[in-house]
Amino acid sequence: MSPSPAPRPAHDVAAELCRRARAAARALNAASTADKDRALHATARLLRERTDTLAEQSRRDVEAATAAGLKGALLDRLKLDGARVEALARAVLEVAALPDPVGRLEDVTPRPSGIQAGRMRVPLGVILMVYEARPNVTVEAAALALKSGNAVLLRGGKEALNANRALSALFAEALREAGLPAEAAQLVEDPDRSVLEALLPRRGDIELCIPRGGVDLIRKVAAEARMPVVEHFQGICHVYVDDAADLGMALDVVRNGKVQRPGVCNATECVLVHSAVAARFLPLLHDELSRANVELRGCAESRRHVPAMKAATEQDWDTEFLDLVLAVKVVDGVDAALEFIARHGSRHSESIITMRHDRAMRFLREVDASCVLVNASTRFNDGGELGLGAEMGISTTKLHAYGPMGLEELTARKWVVLGHGECRGEQPRRRAN
Amino acid sequence: MSPSPAPRPAHDVAAELCRRARAAARALNAASTADKDRALHATARLLRERTDTLAEQSRRDVEAATAAGLKGALLDRLKLDGARVEALARAVLEVAALPDPVGRLEDVTPRPSGIQAGRMRVPLGVILMVYEARPNVTVEAAALALKSGNAVLLRGGKEALNANRALSALFAEALREAGLPAEAAQLVEDPDRSVLEALLPRRGDIELCIPRGGVDLIRKVAAEARMPVVEHFQGICHVYVDDAADLGMALDVVRNGKVQRPGVCNATECVLVHSAVAARFLPLLHDELSRANVELRGCAESRRHVPAMKAATEQDWDTEFLDLVLAVKVVDGVDAALEFIARHGSRHSESIITMRHDRAMRFLREVDASCVLVNASTRFNDGGELGLGAEMGISTTKLHAYGPMGLEELTARKWVVLGHGECRGEQPRRRAN
Repeated sequence: MSPSPAPRPAHDVAAELCRRARAAARALNAASTADKDRALHATARLLRERTDTLAEQSRRDVEAATAAGLKGALLDRLKLDGARVEALARAVLEVAALPDPVGRLEDVTPRPSGIQAGRMRVPLGVILMVYEARPNVTVEAAALALKSGNAVLLRGGKEALNANRALSALFAEALREAGLPAEAAQLVEDPDRSVLEALLPRRGDIELCIPRGGVDLIRKVAAEARMPVVEHFQGICHVYVDDAADLGMALDVVRNGKVQRPGVCNATECVLVHSAVAARFLPLLHDELSRANVELRGCAESRRHVPAMKAATEQDWDTEFLDLVLAVKVVDGVDAALEFIARHGSRHSESIITMRHDRAMRFLREVDASCVLVNASTRFNDGGELGLGAEMGISTTKLHAYGPMGLEELTARKWVVLGHGECRGEQPRRRAN
Repeated sequence: MSPSPAPRPAHDVAAELCRRARAAARALNAASTADKDRALHATARLLRERTDTLAEQSRRDVEAATAAGLKGALLDRLKLDGARVEALARAVLEVAALPDPVGRLEDVTPRPSGIQAGRMRVPLGVILMVYEARPNVTVEAAALALKSGNAVLLRGGKEALNANRALSALFAEALREAGLPAEAAQLVEDPDRSVLEALLPRRGDIELCIPRGGVDLIRKVAAEARMPVVEHFQGICHVYVDDAADLGMALDVVRNGKVQRPGVCNATECVLVHSAVAARFLPLLHDELSRANVELRGCAESRRHVPAMKAATEQDWDTEFLDLVLAVKVVDGVDAALEFIARHGSRHSESIITMRHDRAMRFLREVDASCVLVNASTRFNDGGELGLGAEMGISTTKLHAYGPMGLEELTARKWVVLGHGECRGEQPRRRAN
């Protein structure tokens, strides 16, 4: 066997990735909706045809990770079996079915000068997606980027390398089949983070960076990136149960927010209970959630009503449990709830349960979070549930996009002016038609 | 006279400015439209009442700047005379007359789960405005920030200190008169840039930084800021005259773009002429613009048609002249024009003059600029002309805002969900009304 060639320095790799991505981005901006959809349909077909190969590559990743000591949820996320490949194929077809945002003219309006002025949706350009174990993100992000006309650099986790390679090769094949540049979605192989570190300063080459994963990864990316970063931070989501709440409804919404899928960012982590209904509500809550194996951790006041409840620590108010654990705090009303959420919330999803219109409106207006809900479960902060279709993640950054990022959030709007020779500050000349 | 106290370290000053701004921002988010408009009307009234005092403070700045050797356009921008104060009062009243974006519900739509989901416009929070000589920016930016519910830190240039002090004191008085916190718009006095340097790393305290001024200032801010920066870079704006253009229209549009106000960012700096009409168009252009005292600087090919034209240097293609100088380049068609603009344009304003629909549509779609125009002067890329009302500046950044930034561009949209107790993935219970 001949020795493998010396690896190129990370800086050169990053420059070459960016050069190819920029060329692909210019082609994608001009690409037709039909060609983009053709590539997405081909992707779904290839996913279904090659389910066994993909599952086999994923098994290699899982075996290596198991040998390296990975366990539980982390290991589960790596897995790509037949059912997950089929779900991925369906997700890609859903993206194909969404309307193409690129080139859409919006609000084109005649102005007193005679021009018509409005906006055209345009792709952002080149997006750097940084994610961890889940290999399905490789195809989901590539599909959303393609439909919104953006080139994407897919910097996945090294644990999923075999599955990511197989998926990105498949996506490249689908792109070529539709006559589109394969460089529209490039996998970034980067076992030691050196390529990522070389990409993050390249403002001008990369329009947007989207990190998805653990808090440490996001912080590192946000600290080093010189281009805009849309962060997808943790969700410490509250439900505030007002004294004017339907307590049966409150029980349902809290249970659903905590139990339906506890390991995700829009799960409810803390319930705030108005002191006037604490004596009535907390025993009901304790019964209902104990049946669902949820551990409650309460403040001193709430434990007066339910002494069986474990005591919450100060740290619990700032923890994303992602588990069957719920913090419980008694508050004196909507002002105290707003104050508590401003201090401990993570700008993700916040819900109020009340029948009083004035309190609902105040909560809606004053809570600073990507999604504020009245009488509904925090679990609804999701692209599909809100009507966006698939999503690139949920932004807790307020600039550019706030909340689930669908196709529109992956575009910008430029101004367009349609004229007939208008000049500013001058009377128009009469011209022949 | 007692010695003046030692100045506080810049870090402490920055922390205190941010603390006050955050408290004001929370109050402004909840403030009524009526109160905000009352403050704006009071501002206009006080501006008119105190025209003489303001002009006097500005004269002190101008005298100091003259003594320091400042000249010409720079000195002129410092000046705040009666006419400019009156223009400022009118601009503030125009902002008061614009609709309040904050709290506006958009696209609220019923979803299959039973919830209604949509967006609410919310203020960004705290905005840091960094600008140079023009003191009127102090009031314009404060007015736009107030109406859009944002607290603003106004870091003006030290040359305009006396005028800026008088204007910000006046604005604070108007805020108090309307029962709003005076800290909604704080002047940042910073003779040595140390406070600016202490503010720029404060991501989390400041949502957005908007630098307006020279390229050096913008570059410095973009390099040091850790929060999102909306850049307002130079405008190297082109007009492409197609071979299917009405040449009379082309002459008008180029003349207007160059001559109507040469010192601004949306002025035309370069004209690209299709080779098939160069022989006919260039002599007309030379005659027309020579009469307006414009110096043309042409490529070799264009000088074959008009030998009297001065030769352009390579550097001219990348220069924002801001003066009666126009670069002229002959190109082989729309592809070459698109290529030239991609290389030398600054993503500001780009116009095509053509009667051919296919070329107009291609230009509109493929040019990456904050405003792309067909058969109209580049001078129309302006908040007022496009229908936004007043503007905070023109963004050449594609994320969050692209082009003139009006009130909407100073807000974000959060999701709101209006429910009746809906839980995700569960059938709704029937409840009593």
